[in-house]
Amino acid sequence: MQFTKIENGYMIYVEKGENIMESITQFCIKNKINNAQLSGIGAVKNIEIGAFDTDNKKYIRQNFEDTWELVSYQGNISLKDDIPFIHAHVAISDHNLDIKGGHLFEATVAAVGEFILRKIDNNVYRELNEDIGLPTLCMVDRS
Amino acid sequence: MQFTKIENGYMIYVEKGENIMESITQFCIKNKINNAQLSGIGAVKNIEIGAFDTDNKKYIRQNFEDTWELVSYQGNISLKDDIPFIHAHVAISDHNLDIKGGHLFEATVAAVGEFILRKIDNNVYRELNEDIGLPTLCMVDRS
Amino acid sequence: MQFTKIENGYMIYVEKGENIMESITQFCIKNKINNAQLSGIGAVKNIEIGAFDTDNKKYIRQNFEDTWELVSYQGNISLKDDIPFIHAHVAISDHNLDIKGGHLFEATVAAVGEFILRKIDNNVYRELNEDIGLPTLCMVDRS
Repeated sequence: MQFTKIENGYMIYVEKGENIMESITQFCIKNKINNAQLSGIGAVKNIEIGAFDTDNKKYIRQNFEDTWELVSYQGNISLKDDIPFIHAHVAISDHNLDIKGGHLFEATVAAVGEFILRKIDNNVYRELNEDIGLPTLCMVDRS
Repeated sequence: MQFTKIENGYMIYVEKGENIMESITQFCIKNKINNAQLSGIGAVKNIEIGAFDTDNKKYIRQNFEDTWELVSYQGNISLKDDIPFIHAHVAISDHNLDIKGGHLFEATVAAVGEFILRKIDNNVYRELNEDIGLPTLCMVDRS
Repeated sequence: MQFTKIENGYMIYVEKGENIMESITQFCIKNKINNAQLSGIGAVKNIEIGAFDTDNKKYIRQNFEDTWELVSYQGNISLKDDIPFIHAHVAISDHNLDIKGGHLFEATVAAVGEFILRKIDNNVYRELNEDIGLPTLCMVDRS
């Protein structure tokens, strides 16, 4: 992984063969980044994505081994059990330019992974919401 | 809706059962947010999206009642008739991880809706452009 | 093209008939923007997108002449041969709201093109990586 500090965050280049979620999570732990906005593009393989089944309160998962374009990666970083946790959704496209998408569990960079992380100076955290079946964001104010 | 102030905007958690466009528009009116950048992810239902037919100058619309992952939400906020107006496009994925997408009219949060709003200190507004058939952005400079 | 200066960048409205990549690249050259984050939405036509074939180290390309919603546009700007270079991926949707996506070569605005460019005060550049077959980002630090 290469990176460079920018005004309120980092440009991050996750390199070929590196796992995106694992690499950036470790980067956040090391650099004490508790909250952030994260977005990026690239080309990935060995992708596991899913969709949340709200009735059964679990993720339906699919794996894609081939190389796909990482068309869109949008996510946020919050604290879960006091550790930086990335919640990210992706759209990926194959060589026909057809698209799949969903919640990202993990993906390995096949060519490049180019991300911009914008730090947020806050301590938003996640706690299990039993009604929803997911650890949801906990914030200060309510409207 | 939960929210927390961040450096130049807000993290916003639109909660289960709340309408995204309606909730965030009300939030912008209340907090005098005239211009902003808005992005997010989540899981939504009762979704109305569309594509603009440039020949007939009207939107083709489709509704999706089931729960879909909100894979990508990108938008901007400007003034239309002096009121904050959100223009947002989304990609959504079903339980097969197949994707649909387009201009978002409205969607209800099915599990979570996690957004980051970055305020822009400006007064960009929209005015009907009769050639295009849409209220388009009006800015200061021309290149 | 219309634009307005914002806190750390620009709101950019690429107008009907203008080419997105060409217009924004020229804008970056003129305004000496070497590094930036770029995102946007709109409606486009005469679109050329592709997927990188990592085995043959070349892009597979497809063209779409009709008008499509620009559902998501995410990119970054870095220096390539000392000139600002946009690397962007897009998702586009047709009138059935079906989606295609990939690496964007060029697209012409069919109705509107609404972008937000956030300048990054840095000198990240691209250099051909022969193992990958693409000009990849070169940054200061390694983790």
